[in-house]
Amino acid sequence: MRYYKIPDETIRRLPAYLKGLVFFSEQGGQSGQPTISSGEIADYLGINPWQIRKDFSYFGSFGTPGVGYNIKKLVKQISKILRLDVGHKAALVGVGNLGSAVLAYRGFKTYGFDIVTAFDSDPKKIGRKTNNITIENITKIQSLKKRNISLGIIVVPHNAAQQTAEALIKAGVRGILNFSPCYLTVPKKVKVISIDIAMDLVRLPYYMPAG
Amino acid sequence: MRYYKIPDETIRRLPAYLKGLVFFSEQGGQSGQPTISSGEIADYLGINPWQIRKDFSYFGSFGTPGVGYNIKKLVKQISKILRLDVGHKAALVGVGNLGSAVLAYRGFKTYGFDIVTAFDSDPKKIGRKTNNITIENITKIQSLKKRNISLGIIVVPHNAAQQTAEALIKAGVRGILNFSPCYLTVPKKVKVISIDIAMDLVRLPYYMPAG
Repeated sequence: MRYYKIPDETIRRLPAYLKGLVFFSEQGGQSGQPTISSGEIADYLGINPWQIRKDFSYFGSFGTPGVGYNIKKLVKQISKILRLDVGHKAALVGVGNLGSAVLAYRGFKTYGFDIVTAFDSDPKKIGRKTNNITIENITKIQSLKKRNISLGIIVVPHNAAQQTAEALIKAGVRGILNFSPCYLTVPKKVKVISIDIAMDLVRLPYYMPAG
Repeated sequence: MRYYKIPDETIRRLPAYLKGLVFFSEQGGQSGQPTISSGEIADYLGINPWQIRKDFSYFGSFGTPGVGYNIKKLVKQISKILRLDVGHKAALVGVGNLGSAVLAYRGFKTYGFDIVTAFDSDPKKIGRKTNNITIENITKIQSLKKRNISLGIIVVPHNAAQQTAEALIKAGVRGILNFSPCYLTVPKKVKVISIDIAMDLVRLPYYMPAG
């Protein structure tokens, strides 16, 4: 089921809310605190309280005045909207420095993602084990189809990114997280989200106080 | 000078526009093509043309009907709004897999950023040279003050992130790009932008076509 009435800008904030709520209930909040106010979320995430209330109202969460939102219920709702309530298997391509860092990153599991395999073309890397994953030969990428892996993570050099995307799509992948600094051309049935670590740094000077 | 009337959502898209325009003029567009239409930018970036026209109108760029926007002028305007027209020197802390990947990433220079030094606490890494940068002992971090470095990039494990932020701020840093999966507490005079690579992956299933 899709929640079509939720604006894309709200969808973009949902992962941050989810992360904040999970962190808050695990570490930040009082032990066992079952509710959280929009003000507390605001302090935690640096988002305006009115924006938070507006975002949550799109999926029918209005909170109780003077009490706030039930944390567990919110986490469940957001996970469902983002379709994280079903597990997702991902394959990573390109085990360089950044690829290794992504494999070592444990944050994915919290959100129902499991990077189950990794591919590389470098004979020195193939067969090696890293973070409990054995690196496979890129020529074996078609095997993804049988393994029910629908997500691909591209961490190859930019001149290999497009052909990697095409191989992943041919192998049945329908969602791609692209770390290569280039634009991928893909069919409409495939969704690409690109991460360019420079893009966030670029915003920083704008927000920095002068002097 | 600040352009106060530009909404934050537009500011967030400016880096993507800048990247798209630079790529387009270098690779995508016809050689020497001086203008670009909102439709061409839309195809390139996957943003609605009306959104693009609205965003650009905030800083007085309206384009010429049937001709489009002057690319060079747009790049200059966006760079100025984001304060990228003055150079920025950055220091990176934590030269693990992800830190090494950030150091190797050449995209920063395009936008006026120069990572001029890196710190680590591991004696095996200190003194080693990577990407033309000699890794310094973290105990020397106070020297940043003299070197006019105002940006810090934190790529340390999460249990060391807060103290690293405090050391950077004490050394005069006013903008922090945080790759650690934790929330930093900083004074108001400091701006933190956090990157969590899981946050983008988390949005992917929502956009993926069912089946």
